[in-house]
Amino acid sequence: MSLTFLAPVGAVIALLYAAFLAGRILRSPEGNEKMKSISMAVRKGANAYLKRQYTGVIIFFAVMFVILLCLALTGFLTIFVPFAFLTGGFFSGLSGFIGMKIATSANARTANAAQTSLNAGLKIAFSSGAVMGFVVVGLGLIDISFWYYFLKWFYRALPEAEQIQSITSAMLTFGMGASSMALFARVGGGIFTKAADVGADLVGKVEAGIPEDDPRNPAVIADNVGDNVGDVAGMGADLYESYVGSIISTAALAVAAGLGFSGVTIPIVMAAIGILSSIVGTFFVSTKEGASQKNLLSALRRGTWISGVIVAIAAFPLIYFGLGSDKIGFYIAILTGLIAGILIGLTTEYFTSDTYKPTQNLAKTSLTGPATVIIGGLSLGMLSTVLPVVIVSVSILISYSVSGGSGSIGDATFNQGLYGVGLSAVGMLSTLGITLATDAYGPVADNAGGIAEMAGLGENVRERTDALDSLGNTTAATGKGFAIGSAALTALALIASFIAEVQIIDPDFSFELSIINPPVLIGLFVGGVLPFLFASLTMDAVGRAAQSIVVEVRRQFREIKGLLEGSEEPDYATCVDICTKSAQKEMLPPAILAVIAPILIGLILGVNGICGMLGGATVSGFILAVMMANSGGAWDNAKKYIEGGAHGGKGSEAHKAAVVGDTVGDPFKDTSGPSINILIKLLSMVSIVFASVIVSYHIF
Amino acid sequence: MSLTFLAPVGAVIALLYAAFLAGRILRSPEGNEKMKSISMAVRKGANAYLKRQYTGVIIFFAVMFVILLCLALTGFLTIFVPFAFLTGGFFSGLSGFIGMKIATSANARTANAAQTSLNAGLKIAFSSGAVMGFVVVGLGLIDISFWYYFLKWFYRALPEAEQIQSITSAMLTFGMGASSMALFARVGGGIFTKAADVGADLVGKVEAGIPEDDPRNPAVIADNVGDNVGDVAGMGADLYESYVGSIISTAALAVAAGLGFSGVTIPIVMAAIGILSSIVGTFFVSTKEGASQKNLLSALRRGTWISGVIVAIAAFPLIYFGLGSDKIGFYIAILTGLIAGILIGLTTEYFTSDTYKPTQNLAKTSLTGPATVIIGGLSLGMLSTVLPVVIVSVSILISYSVSGGSGSIGDATFNQGLYGVGLSAVGMLSTLGITLATDAYGPVADNAGGIAEMAGLGENVRERTDALDSLGNTTAATGKGFAIGSAALTALALIASFIAEVQIIDPDFSFELSIINPPVLIGLFVGGVLPFLFASLTMDAVGRAAQSIVVEVRRQFREIKGLLEGSEEPDYATCVDICTKSAQKEMLPPAILAVIAPILIGLILGVNGICGMLGGATVSGFILAVMMANSGGAWDNAKKYIEGGAHGGKGSEAHKAAVVGDTVGDPFKDTSGPSINILIKLLSMVSIVFASVIVSYHIF
Repeated sequence: MSLTFLAPVGAVIALLYAAFLAGRILRSPEGNEKMKSISMAVRKGANAYLKRQYTGVIIFFAVMFVILLCLALTGFLTIFVPFAFLTGGFFSGLSGFIGMKIATSANARTANAAQTSLNAGLKIAFSSGAVMGFVVVGLGLIDISFWYYFLKWFYRALPEAEQIQSITSAMLTFGMGASSMALFARVGGGIFTKAADVGADLVGKVEAGIPEDDPRNPAVIADNVGDNVGDVAGMGADLYESYVGSIISTAALAVAAGLGFSGVTIPIVMAAIGILSSIVGTFFVSTKEGASQKNLLSALRRGTWISGVIVAIAAFPLIYFGLGSDKIGFYIAILTGLIAGILIGLTTEYFTSDTYKPTQNLAKTSLTGPATVIIGGLSLGMLSTVLPVVIVSVSILISYSVSGGSGSIGDATFNQGLYGVGLSAVGMLSTLGITLATDAYGPVADNAGGIAEMAGLGENVRERTDALDSLGNTTAATGKGFAIGSAALTALALIASFIAEVQIIDPDFSFELSIINPPVLIGLFVGGVLPFLFASLTMDAVGRAAQSIVVEVRRQFREIKGLLEGSEEPDYATCVDICTKSAQKEMLPPAILAVIAPILIGLILGVNGICGMLGGATVSGFILAVMMANSGGAWDNAKKYIEGGAHGGKGSEAHKAAVVGDTVGDPFKDTSGPSINILIKLLSMVSIVFASVIVSYHIF
Repeated sequence: MSLTFLAPVGAVIALLYAAFLAGRILRSPEGNEKMKSISMAVRKGANAYLKRQYTGVIIFFAVMFVILLCLALTGFLTIFVPFAFLTGGFFSGLSGFIGMKIATSANARTANAAQTSLNAGLKIAFSSGAVMGFVVVGLGLIDISFWYYFLKWFYRALPEAEQIQSITSAMLTFGMGASSMALFARVGGGIFTKAADVGADLVGKVEAGIPEDDPRNPAVIADNVGDNVGDVAGMGADLYESYVGSIISTAALAVAAGLGFSGVTIPIVMAAIGILSSIVGTFFVSTKEGASQKNLLSALRRGTWISGVIVAIAAFPLIYFGLGSDKIGFYIAILTGLIAGILIGLTTEYFTSDTYKPTQNLAKTSLTGPATVIIGGLSLGMLSTVLPVVIVSVSILISYSVSGGSGSIGDATFNQGLYGVGLSAVGMLSTLGITLATDAYGPVADNAGGIAEMAGLGENVRERTDALDSLGNTTAATGKGFAIGSAALTALALIASFIAEVQIIDPDFSFELSIINPPVLIGLFVGGVLPFLFASLTMDAVGRAAQSIVVEVRRQFREIKGLLEGSEEPDYATCVDICTKSAQKEMLPPAILAVIAPILIGLILGVNGICGMLGGATVSGFILAVMMANSGGAWDNAKKYIEGGAHGGKGSEAHKAAVVGDTVGDPFKDTSGPSINILIKLLSMVSIVFASVIVSYHIF
């Protein structure tokens, strides 16, 4: 199908649009000297961090490259695999890097524009988010297109089925590269940002009693840097991975589903359509001065909805003409994904926004102290997992059924059903360009608020940036809903791809995937525990890193005379440096765990055990990730709700209790929770890449 | 095999021994008038609670009885099912009731005996625990023996295979009765005890600044009552259910495994051997005056170890002569279970005892406030799930393999392997008589300490009861390890029984249990989320009930003049009454959920979906239960560690932070965590009983 050309075209348009927006941002003024210097400090810190992170990551990629190269030279893998792995990592990292570059340039400009009007501030912040969104999707499609065309040309002599298999197998590898990079970025950035945040709060807010973002706090620049390296660069790499993961895992099922080249191109073209719709959507985001938070939210929503509707319309002819009128069920699968994404986002919002009962009730528990806040928040998070599970379950059932899914493993109809499940993930993520824009603008607004505070801009400026920031929390929740929902569906498509890969390697392999078969069952148990282990490692890492910041901030308060009086400047750079070093050291064990675990389990329990492990990790990881994200979000907003005047407002005992909840929620929602999303996909990717090794060598 | 006679004999011996111990306890003096009156108040409160609980439960059982009767009359079930269901519930409740009766009689007597010596106190408290232990195993085996002999006689005309099937099917139903009762007892008792505990602490310790167990606190009697209805009656019903569940689920696999009547009797006789070994073990529990906590612990350990060794020796001839020399692999399965139980107990101890690093490090996090305590405790709990998962996984693999497990569903060899897994659960629980004794003695010691405090006995008495109590925390952790480990293995045997049951109902049923099959996969997701939902419901219930106690205690402090000065008595009864009412109201939704969920999911997703659900619930429930129990235990002991003088000791900021952790841990370890154990088995039991309905009616 010749429509594939849309992919590189869409990718280039996305990147050009991003460049256009970036230019517009950079042409706007950055404000007074004070603002410039703060922004510069944040930019320098973020650059220093990323430079160090990429140095560490390069070593990991070099080692993996050598391993993959050895496997390729010994015939376990095709020769493109190690290179595809590198490009996946490179583009994932680049997405985060560019997103962060623009975010650190937009923060002071947003604060400055907010001096003029709310709308001006929104424009800058949202444009910055949009740059990130379109860079992610643009680079993703560029990478996919490049490998698709190159491999198609290279394997042109092979019969069609083999050609497609060779193409998609190699492309899955670059998914592994992207996932590895994403994990490093999310975990490292997540540790950095929360160590700085928690450390700054524990000493500054709680012990010294100075306000948030106060320039006297030595960790305040590190905190702002953290927003950029964690919430921006980390998220960029993360969603790059989700995006390409959903596309290539679906494409990889095309042969097994008997759909041929059309089956490969449909998800790729869907992505291109999504880019164009997202660009149209961004034109509709703007607001009037004096807009309420509700107006702001609907301004952002309008853009997302319009993009979604366009995709929903354009997908119909794509399936109808691309696959044929008898395959129209796939269209319904795409719609299912789109709707499921929105529904999960809505449930997230319901459970975490302070305009609804759950978070309001959580705020009330602060009246009886921190213990009840914690119990309430955990309970809320656990309860909030039920609806997403039901939504994902129903969408699996629908997208499988409408896609003609039936029979059992190995049947083309069965794989067709799973291809449908993959398409629903692609549908969910197709409008990523704009959903990511509404999500990534949050940290920019947050930083702008910090700069406004530190530069001593007027009350009304801070109010405007606060309005933008608070909205960012809601859109971030929605964005997390998309990320988690698509992760579950993509993980399933990846498990199916793994099975298909094993069938290619050994067509006679006899699967025994019954859940009561001991290797599968044990795989389920071990896979189920991995997200818990991962969450524990990452939370501990944040705790340790925060501890070192606490020690340093206390030291500065003690040793730098005149600091608390404001007559002396704190030493910001040391805090940034400590965070950087801690994050680098701490991100390694969890990341290595994610790569080693599937290989180790595969070598012990074999293919059936791996399938069990992937299933267990997907189920428990999905639930744990939703729980942690929602508990964290609700604690954050319950605190904000009290700061807005409820239950005694700022400084009251209730507020202190709520701050405890918020602090616990920080690593929940910004480090462990989102990393688990990546973990479950990386486990599958690693399994797929190492499938041939595991098929050859295993104990059980 | 004629050895079955050992079961009723063992049961009677256990009950006689319990009666003998009870008589000895009741003959010892209860102390002065003050102690008697406190003990009487606790006894009255506990009786009032149980009376109300049983009233509520009777309605549930009546409704279920009618439903089961209708199903029996319409041919879906045999006519014995509703009656077996009732006896299971009755005996489970009776176990808890007797255990509680003796515990509430032993508390003052333990305090009184502790005035003489540590050893005297230990003797009474341990004897009280032993009464409970032997009542549980005695009643369990009585019930099993009765139905076994009765059904064997009734079905005497059937061919052997059918006869065994009819016997074991009916016996599984009484497992469902026991599980339902256990769930009510655990959830209701757990809500009661933690509402009283949390409520008493929040107002008494935190707000009014009076010590724990202070007689001026209006909730102090309710707190003591709670220890008895939750930690004693709840645990009794719970472990009764575990005990009979492991035995009958293993027996039910006998036909499918091709082992005939010998296969049915082996687990029953194993249980009888365990009883006799446990009795021998109890003779070795005693200590010298001036014994350190280590001496005390080894006194208790000695008894448990000796029982374990006797079982390990006696099981060999049982298998060798009972099943034949070629079946000696089953002996290794039993040993695997015994060892796995001990290992899980040790890991639990490592993570929750303050003599090891994890809890000591957790105590250190209190220096930076409550938020870090919470993050640290959750992280510790999550990390602590890894080893139990590995231990359970390895024991599944070993016991399956050594039992000759191979092939796939429907093969006799496959079922033989799963029968081996069931036997390992039986092995793990065989010494329940004594492990439960060491576990159930904890709440008695705790209560004795409370009575010593309230009656104003000397410092040295309180020190002795504290020594006993602190030890109880460690043994309770070990006991929980056994309960959780055996729950996982039993749940597997039950899933296998469910599959076997479906095959009996419809021999042509074609299973499609592959984890990637959508109904199974969705079952996994939905099953995986159930424990989270359940935990959320029970934690919320505790929160709400505690809230009403907080309000009441504050009211009494405000309205009763002279209360805080000690010149006026508080109104204890109202607090007991509030807890009772709250617990009754709050226990219904989670309990009903556990019964309805499998039926509903079965009617929608069919047999394959149910299997997925059971697998998902077992995996995520096991992990969540371990995590909650260990986080809770570690928080409790970290607080005690600080109270022992570390990091500033009692009253320091660190202590306050640790109290927050302890309060969060209360519902974790004593309500939600242990209830999840029962939940995962009840789900399977309900599925088995309703299997014939589900096979006939389902959507997918």
